[in-house]
Amino acid sequence: MTALAATTLLFTPEACCADTRARTGSLRLGRGTIQTPVFMPVGTQGTVKAVTPRDLEELGAEIILGNTYHLYLRPGHDLVASLGGLHRFMAWEKPILTDSGGFQVFSLGDLRKVEEEGVHFASHIDGSRHLLTPELSMQIQAALGSDIAMIFDECLKYPADRAATERSMELSLRWAARSRASHGIHGAASGQALFGIVQGGFEADIRVRSAQAIVDMGFDGYAVGGLSVGEGKELMHQVLEAVEPHLPESAPRYLMGVGLPIDLVEAVARGFDMFDCVMPTRHARTGSLFRGWGRINIKNARFRDDARPVEAGCSCYTCRNFSRAYLRHLFLAGEILGHHLNTVHNLHHYLALMRAIRTAIREGRFGAFYRQAVDTASQQETTDA
Amino acid sequence: MTALAATTLLFTPEACCADTRARTGSLRLGRGTIQTPVFMPVGTQGTVKAVTPRDLEELGAEIILGNTYHLYLRPGHDLVASLGGLHRFMAWEKPILTDSGGFQVFSLGDLRKVEEEGVHFASHIDGSRHLLTPELSMQIQAALGSDIAMIFDECLKYPADRAATERSMELSLRWAARSRASHGIHGAASGQALFGIVQGGFEADIRVRSAQAIVDMGFDGYAVGGLSVGEGKELMHQVLEAVEPHLPESAPRYLMGVGLPIDLVEAVARGFDMFDCVMPTRHARTGSLFRGWGRINIKNARFRDDARPVEAGCSCYTCRNFSRAYLRHLFLAGEILGHHLNTVHNLHHYLALMRAIRTAIREGRFGAFYRQAVDTASQQETTDA
Repeated sequence: MTALAATTLLFTPEACCADTRARTGSLRLGRGTIQTPVFMPVGTQGTVKAVTPRDLEELGAEIILGNTYHLYLRPGHDLVASLGGLHRFMAWEKPILTDSGGFQVFSLGDLRKVEEEGVHFASHIDGSRHLLTPELSMQIQAALGSDIAMIFDECLKYPADRAATERSMELSLRWAARSRASHGIHGAASGQALFGIVQGGFEADIRVRSAQAIVDMGFDGYAVGGLSVGEGKELMHQVLEAVEPHLPESAPRYLMGVGLPIDLVEAVARGFDMFDCVMPTRHARTGSLFRGWGRINIKNARFRDDARPVEAGCSCYTCRNFSRAYLRHLFLAGEILGHHLNTVHNLHHYLALMRAIRTAIREGRFGAFYRQAVDTASQQETTDA
Repeated sequence: MTALAATTLLFTPEACCADTRARTGSLRLGRGTIQTPVFMPVGTQGTVKAVTPRDLEELGAEIILGNTYHLYLRPGHDLVASLGGLHRFMAWEKPILTDSGGFQVFSLGDLRKVEEEGVHFASHIDGSRHLLTPELSMQIQAALGSDIAMIFDECLKYPADRAATERSMELSLRWAARSRASHGIHGAASGQALFGIVQGGFEADIRVRSAQAIVDMGFDGYAVGGLSVGEGKELMHQVLEAVEPHLPESAPRYLMGVGLPIDLVEAVARGFDMFDCVMPTRHARTGSLFRGWGRINIKNARFRDDARPVEAGCSCYTCRNFSRAYLRHLFLAGEILGHHLNTVHNLHHYLALMRAIRTAIREGRFGAFYRQAVDTASQQETTDA
């Protein structure tokens, strides 16, 4: 394992849980120190949708995610760089992790074609044709000036057979090496950290080979990609359990794009430290509000005259000030404020959960926390309280 | 002039301008004291669009406007009342003025029909048929629990001939008397103030007769309605100048639904104290941002890489943190945050102008302020700086 040059990232594992793999740690970056396990709100187009940077700070967000694919297409990474980088552009001073664009172009379906060199795709905005390569992804992420860059990888379609899974994992490894080399030119000099990504679908041995090869290359942190693609929880847990023993204790582990609150608890129990997901922000905009381990649909007629907050005891701005009846009214009237207040609540729900998880680990009671969470969540999944 | 029973409103004129009719004053209501001249942001559907009550407080808003027509149709005034009234519903603790619904049903065009009893109209939401009368308007405004209610009047179409203008003004006077009587039953007991409205189109003598009759009836404040309907500034100023000498010095004077920043300066110079207009919030949502006495269109390609704030020296959250290039990006990307940040800037522009006006009057230099504003505005009207 070769250390990356000039990175400013320092991960220090702290408390561990006796009866699960859960751990707390601190991740020091040039722009701030993050307490793990951590949830990263997603800021696709240079904004976490419907909230200000000030809102995010008040919610306790310590790091957010930016999307390379979207910012490359609009407004363009060169423009963002000329305006002082993504932090200055969006007025967010704390750390930013950028994805590589791999998952986003994968999501384009028929609009993209994968070759050895990279992914040919047509823009979802204007149909213009582009080729995204590991080298271009590193160049974009360096121009955006994120604190943590991700290697460019291929996201496999689900389901896929064993041969396709193996081919895809091998391609991702070659792209990982190219990403690492290119990052040495573009991102490393400014202290940007680089995370490797483990792929390999749902074949445990292929996942393990990917993990070993990625760890051998040496990165500042290690992510698991290609999960939460429709495989179900059991398969996801099997992959996490197969991969985790092969990831170094001394580096942060990032489960990409997952998931529901209970999924985060499950992954923390399996030794993962970092998470991102569009669920809290996206659900907010459809009126689906997290409550306990479930959700309520604020459009529901039974909330018409409900004077209660979304969640009793919740300390977010929305729950401290507004009733379900008011939020329902805003949603039905198509008011922007509704999207904002719903987003504040849902992000608070995730960020407060991560705080509760960290405290439980530090206080040596995460095992009990975990078992109670899993029990309660399984009962609430079928109800809409 | 008969005093209204049980009202808590107390208006105290303070500094006056030597060479214009401008004056400052304080308007004491149960929920707070307002410094005049004052601009009231419009909160049509139980929210000032795209901002939170907390934002409004930070912007320095002291009173906002709610729309009787919209809240009657959705979510319904009885529902709002059952949830503790409009203040509690929308979490705004400072004063609220509600309009009477008269202008809103007038705006429905062919969907409404005026009779002696009231206005028959079809809902813009579901086409359901309703009859809005002075009595129902008072009942709705009492249920909403606003601090200041407005009488129900007819808004004349523009242009209108002298006979139609006279008939309409007389009808509005009869509705004013009915509003006043009904308010005694519904609103007055809770300390809600009631404002009369002067109508009479663009016939100076009819306006004067309306003003005299309304003042004879006796209200807590006096509004001028039916302006800014396409008549041009000169006609508007003629009406203000004809009416103002007939309004008591000891009561607040409210120019309804007007206008651009320079229009507010012009009306202040003619002795008016209170204003509302959807312009700052509505223009914000189309990317039209107030700057100086003009506006810039943030969608314009020349702002693509413009690192400057919307307005140099502006102290609003938007200008302190974000570039024109970023606001343009948010607008083009359809991001909700863009509407929010634009609204914050535009409302700040109006509210800061009112603070500057009040200071100029108090410091005895409003005459100079006024002349410079009119000069500068006439030069900027044709440019798009």
